[in-house]
Amino acid sequence: MPRTTTYTVNVTFGDCDPAGIVFFPNFSRWMDSASLAFFMQCGVPPWRGLVKTRGIVGTPLLEIHTKFFKPATYGETIEVHTSIEEWAAKTFRHRHVVRRGNDVLCEGTEVRAFVIRDPANADRIKAIPLPEDIKALCV
Amino acid sequence: MPRTTTYTVNVTFGDCDPAGIVFFPNFSRWMDSASLAFFMQCGVPPWRGLVKTRGIVGTPLLEIHTKFFKPATYGETIEVHTSIEEWAAKTFRHRHVVRRGNDVLCEGTEVRAFVIRDPANADRIKAIPLPEDIKALCV
Amino acid sequence: MPRTTTYTVNVTFGDCDPAGIVFFPNFSRWMDSASLAFFMQCGVPPWRGLVKTRGIVGTPLLEIHTKFFKPATYGETIEVHTSIEEWAAKTFRHRHVVRRGNDVLCEGTEVRAFVIRDPANADRIKAIPLPEDIKALCV
Amino acid sequence: MPRTTTYTVNVTFGDCDPAGIVFFPNFSRWMDSASLAFFMQCGVPPWRGLVKTRGIVGTPLLEIHTKFFKPATYGETIEVHTSIEEWAAKTFRHRHVVRRGNDVLCEGTEVRAFVIRDPANADRIKAIPLPEDIKALCV
Repeated sequence: MPRTTTYTVNVTFGDCDPAGIVFFPNFSRWMDSASLAFFMQCGVPPWRGLVKTRGIVGTPLLEIHTKFFKPATYGETIEVHTSIEEWAAKTFRHRHVVRRGNDVLCEGTEVRAFVIRDPANADRIKAIPLPEDIKALCV
Repeated sequence: MPRTTTYTVNVTFGDCDPAGIVFFPNFSRWMDSASLAFFMQCGVPPWRGLVKTRGIVGTPLLEIHTKFFKPATYGETIEVHTSIEEWAAKTFRHRHVVRRGNDVLCEGTEVRAFVIRDPANADRIKAIPLPEDIKALCV
Repeated sequence: MPRTTTYTVNVTFGDCDPAGIVFFPNFSRWMDSASLAFFMQCGVPPWRGLVKTRGIVGTPLLEIHTKFFKPATYGETIEVHTSIEEWAAKTFRHRHVVRRGNDVLCEGTEVRAFVIRDPANADRIKAIPLPEDIKALCV
Repeated sequence: MPRTTTYTVNVTFGDCDPAGIVFFPNFSRWMDSASLAFFMQCGVPPWRGLVKTRGIVGTPLLEIHTKFFKPATYGETIEVHTSIEEWAAKTFRHRHVVRRGNDVLCEGTEVRAFVIRDPANADRIKAIPLPEDIKALCV
C-alpha cells in the first residue's frame, strides 16, 4: 500500500456558497495543499527551496478527476488522505480521499509533473523526468 | 451541435501562484461561472430567483474531469466555451473548452444535478428530476 | 483585557501570488475565519444554527482597516489573535493580530453587525441591535 | 482631479457566501485587480515584464481601509473606479470606489509600495523609491 499522508481542513464560512455548502473548487485547492503537505512530510523541501537548488518551480496539474458524494459546510473538520498511486517517466498520479469522520465526501486523482522554467524562455515552464531522489523519499 | 455560450475571463495577478501561472482551481471556478452564465443566457433565472419559485438552490457537482494543456498568466484574456453534451434523468454533463485565442488551455466536463433543500432536513440538499422546462430553454 | 482567541493557519501554495508571498485578501479571509472561530469558542452556535432559531445570517462587515508589516509564504504557520475591543449599540469591533512566532505580520480591525434577512424583502439583510446574550458569552 | 480608470466585475456564485452576498475579501481582490488594470491602462507593463527589466515584482500592500455600504450578489455587474490620490517618496495611495449603477457599494484606500527582491536575500522583498517614469505615466 502506498505511503499515505493526512491533511486536515477546518471548513470556513468563506469556503461555502449561497447554497450553504463548500464551493467545489475549494476541494481542488485543499487537494493541492494536501499534495504539497505529502511531499513535505516525505522530507522534500518546499518548491521555493527546490527552485534555488534544482530549478523546480512546482508540480502543476496535467489532469484532475474528482467525484463528489456528500457536501460539507463551515464549522466542520475534514481530512484529505493523500497517496501517489502511480509513478510514470515524467508524471505521477495522486489519489486524494476526502473524509469527514467515516463519510467519504469526495475522491479524486491528479496527474502532475515536476517542472522547471524553460531555459529558452523564462516565461514558460517545462516538464522534467521524475527526479529519482524525490521519488525515493516518497515511496 | 449543442448550444454553446462564451464566457470571458480577464486573468488577474491574484489568480496566479508563485510559479506565475493560474492556480488550477481557478479554472474550475471559471467553469462554474461559465455554467451559470450558460443558463442565464438561455433565459433561466439566477438560482436565487429559482429558490423562491421552485426551491432550486443550484446545480452542485457530482463529478469533474479536466485536462490542462497550457498555462495562462495575469493580463491575459481567456474564453470558456460551454455547452451541455448530455442530458440524463437526474443529471446533465457540461463541456467547457478554455481558449486563449486559438490555443486550447484546458478542457473539462462537469456532471451536475439540480437540487432543492431536502424537505425532511433543511440542512441537506436533494437532487430532483431534470426540470423539463429548463431543459427546453437550453437545447 | 478582552477575551482573546487564537486561530492557526497553515499557509498554502495557492494562498501565494507570483511574488511568492501571501496574496493580501487571504489575510482578510483568515481574519473572517478567526472571527467565526472566536464566537464558536465563546459558545455561540454557527450562523446556520442561529438562522433557524433567531434568523441571524451572519456578521457582515461595515469597515475593515489593516496594516501589513511583513509578508508570509507557503509552508509557514501563522496565528490570528482575535478579540472584541468595542461593543456599540448595533456594531462591534474586532482586533486581529496576525503573528508568525514573535513577528507581527499584520494587524487589523473589523467593524461588524449582526444581521437578519429583511422581513420586508428576503433578498436584503438588516442589522439588529447587538444580541445581549451573545455579547454575554463573549466578554 | 486625478486620472481614474474603471474596472468591471461580473459577480459570480462562487464569490458569494452562505448569506447570499459577496464574501467581503473578494472586494479586496477586485480592488487589487483594479490597481493592476489602472497601471496597465496608463501604459505600465505587467509586473512580470517589469521584473525582467527592472526587478520590480509588484506593489504589495502596506495598508488597506474599506467601508462597506451595500451588499452585492451574483449575476450583478459592478464597477471599481480607481485613482491614485497621493504620491509619497516610497508609497502611493489608491482610492477605489465600487459602484453598481448609481449605488456606491463600498469605498476604500490602499497604500502600496513598489518592491524588488532584496539583493541580500532573494526570499525577501524590499521597497524602492517611487519610479518617476512610472509616476509620470499615471498622473
